[in-house]
Amino acid sequence: MSTNALPTQSSDFPAWYGEVVRRAGLAENSAVRGAMVIKPYGYAIWEAIQRELDDRIKATGHENFYFPLFVPISVLAQEGELVEGFAPELAIVTEAGGKTLEEPLAVRPTSEALIWATYARWVQSYRDLPLLYNQWGNAVRWELRPRLFLRTSEFLWQEGHTAHETEEEAVAEALTILHEVYADTIENVLAVPVLRGRKSESERFPGAVDTYTLEALMRDGKALQAATSHYLGQGFPRTFDVRYTGRDGSEQYPHATSWGATTRLVGGIVMAHGDDRGLRRDTRWKPQQVVIVPILREEDADVLHAAAALADELREAGVRVRVDDRPEHRPGFKFNEWELKGVPIRVEIGSRDLAAGAVTVARRDTGGKEQLPVPRAASTIDELLSAVQASLFEAARDVRERRTLRDPSSYAEMIEYLREAGGFVVAPWCGQSECEARVKEDSSATIRLLPFGDEPAPSGACVCCGRPAVTTAVWAQAY
Amino acid sequence: MSTNALPTQSSDFPAWYGEVVRRAGLAENSAVRGAMVIKPYGYAIWEAIQRELDDRIKATGHENFYFPLFVPISVLAQEGELVEGFAPELAIVTEAGGKTLEEPLAVRPTSEALIWATYARWVQSYRDLPLLYNQWGNAVRWELRPRLFLRTSEFLWQEGHTAHETEEEAVAEALTILHEVYADTIENVLAVPVLRGRKSESERFPGAVDTYTLEALMRDGKALQAATSHYLGQGFPRTFDVRYTGRDGSEQYPHATSWGATTRLVGGIVMAHGDDRGLRRDTRWKPQQVVIVPILREEDADVLHAAAALADELREAGVRVRVDDRPEHRPGFKFNEWELKGVPIRVEIGSRDLAAGAVTVARRDTGGKEQLPVPRAASTIDELLSAVQASLFEAARDVRERRTLRDPSSYAEMIEYLREAGGFVVAPWCGQSECEARVKEDSSATIRLLPFGDEPAPSGACVCCGRPAVTTAVWAQAY
Repeated sequence: MSTNALPTQSSDFPAWYGEVVRRAGLAENSAVRGAMVIKPYGYAIWEAIQRELDDRIKATGHENFYFPLFVPISVLAQEGELVEGFAPELAIVTEAGGKTLEEPLAVRPTSEALIWATYARWVQSYRDLPLLYNQWGNAVRWELRPRLFLRTSEFLWQEGHTAHETEEEAVAEALTILHEVYADTIENVLAVPVLRGRKSESERFPGAVDTYTLEALMRDGKALQAATSHYLGQGFPRTFDVRYTGRDGSEQYPHATSWGATTRLVGGIVMAHGDDRGLRRDTRWKPQQVVIVPILREEDADVLHAAAALADELREAGVRVRVDDRPEHRPGFKFNEWELKGVPIRVEIGSRDLAAGAVTVARRDTGGKEQLPVPRAASTIDELLSAVQASLFEAARDVRERRTLRDPSSYAEMIEYLREAGGFVVAPWCGQSECEARVKEDSSATIRLLPFGDEPAPSGACVCCGRPAVTTAVWAQAY
Repeated sequence: MSTNALPTQSSDFPAWYGEVVRRAGLAENSAVRGAMVIKPYGYAIWEAIQRELDDRIKATGHENFYFPLFVPISVLAQEGELVEGFAPELAIVTEAGGKTLEEPLAVRPTSEALIWATYARWVQSYRDLPLLYNQWGNAVRWELRPRLFLRTSEFLWQEGHTAHETEEEAVAEALTILHEVYADTIENVLAVPVLRGRKSESERFPGAVDTYTLEALMRDGKALQAATSHYLGQGFPRTFDVRYTGRDGSEQYPHATSWGATTRLVGGIVMAHGDDRGLRRDTRWKPQQVVIVPILREEDADVLHAAAALADELREAGVRVRVDDRPEHRPGFKFNEWELKGVPIRVEIGSRDLAAGAVTVARRDTGGKEQLPVPRAASTIDELLSAVQASLFEAARDVRERRTLRDPSSYAEMIEYLREAGGFVVAPWCGQSECEARVKEDSSATIRLLPFGDEPAPSGACVCCGRPAVTTAVWAQAY
């Protein structure tokens, strides 16, 4: 670990992000431009996210399967919008087994084409529907301006691909995934608050009828698209000639959805919670929720014994705890390291504390410290973990609310706010792509989402052109 | 599901295998030659294997990480033996992001080269050792004669890559993985018995000093290499210039291991346990251990009620159970389907049984059926699951023992046995590669392993050349 101070968030957020990712051991660049090495600590976060998402994907009735990495160009090319959307980002295998291939193979940028070409064999009757499947794997989209976790030429993700009898059922599926799988994991486990809504036409997934999205605000005022789900209509089924005999005996095309969440979520956690001392994180991650640092000024068996006893008590209560008794490092070094890595609770046990029958407990989220009597320490720490989880979420929501500009008084105010990456702007919009394009040109900001109908209908005029608004839109610069 | 009978194992084992894999919904071929679609039921098996292996990999002190899919050809080419071993099987990306790449990228056939190129940055001092890391992912080795699960151009696997101070420690690591991770999972969870030993020089992994292997016998008398671990010596560290300052202050190269297990294990389960009715399988898999088929001849609420009550009771005992009450299929169809899919225990509940206060329980492994009084059904089924697990293992071991020819009386007898894929031949060997090559030419069989030293030293002469034997060898045709 470098002993230099981290760059501060306010002085240089991108430098802060890169240094935290590197020094906390989350990831590093590789010999392949744009592809990263996800280091053990970063991968442990991804594994935790995977487990949480996978549990919810299965609880909502889905099974996992696995399709090949390679997609023949001719299969990909059948779906015009998809290939147009991804062509500039494809990596292409032209040689294999010592020969030039007759037909080049794309490394999957996403698997709709290959999966729907196969669903043609799996769906004959309405009794075969719905198909509720998900895949965990890697995907490749060539990236010219790579950034660890946020934009990488290869990323890890899950991609769900479902087929349904009716539009109503497919839309319900895409919304179930958005709310019960993605938002539940991201808000209630990762403690990152998200806005929920649909994309404007220009921001939709290639080939989608509707794209639903979760948008989180990072601490530099930029938005991060945290996960998306798509109602794809009948485009893929028509392209790949997937037909079934319906309940009334007539031939039908199924309705499709797809949905994905990627390793960029790891970057999102860093930027939503981190501070100038490093990572802060939710309390549910492995490898540990609590670290105990014995303060050993001389040979001190009592201190080590007390640390081990507290660790045992916590483990019995189901808390993941580590005793950091490495002899080669001083306590101050260890405090810095665990703060950098974001372990939610640190316990310090020294002989002076112990003589007074107490230990010191430090919260990573607030920096608060308190002395606890030894007999109460384990139960209080267990309660503290819930408190830390709740307060991280609230702190991130407070940042977002403080940085959200509602109903700007003028177009100029809105543009200035967006250009400085002040945060979200919530404003009425006429629904015309000309206005959307103008805001983007003036500020680099895009419409992140159109909130679901639980907000009141907009009154008044489009913030851009002054014509009557048809919807509320949320703008921001974005990763 | 096709209603035609399966091919029998004795008439055409390869056809039997292909039909079972297809009809049980394990996998199918894709639009990309040699790359398969792993279907939900097949992927559920792989997920179960993954979870079991991953738990043991972590319990033995390893962490997971993730390295890029693409390896620059120049990095791969640094390790001569590795690139020579894999060159004919490489898939190569020559275009990406709309441009021809300055340097082509290989799709990883295995990750030693990229990982050791990176370990050069991670290891400076003996304090940085050992590195104990594992990766879950996909790999590509172009396959000219593909076969579902057994030989596929893309496969899923884990690959472990560790670095150690001493040869002794690295060898111990490779053996720990073989015994405590691989053999424990394959024998005690998958119920497939394995022989343990080392490979002869000609069968070693490219670049390995020693390759340790687990070999299982399939029901057609051919062997399957179930998993391998390698002591790699200091070759990769030297090639990629990975050096550290040792305890005595001198500069050292670490000692390396790597180890892997792949989706071919799924094919191994099918061929080690399956019979002419389809799959048989261990009792631990998801999605279910028990299926309850209510026999509904007319509207019969009592039968459905009894099925639900028994399912609840089993679930409370931690048993995964499904009630198959699909109205569109008759009981006989369901029996065939669950036998094909290998669900270990089937319960039949009909109104006649129920009037007698009983249910019928059928074991998939032996085909045995018995009537059980309703009050004892749940606890007896729970015990039966353990019995099925043990009996599957014993049955597979019995097949192997019956099909193992020890100390053949002549070379001619040995060759005839191997040519007919009779099973394993255990015989003394002189250690010369000429004899190994001659057996291979005469019979297509290879040395599967040299058993670890727990067998008595061979007495007498090499079965091939008559010179004094230096070791016992185990031969077989293999997948």
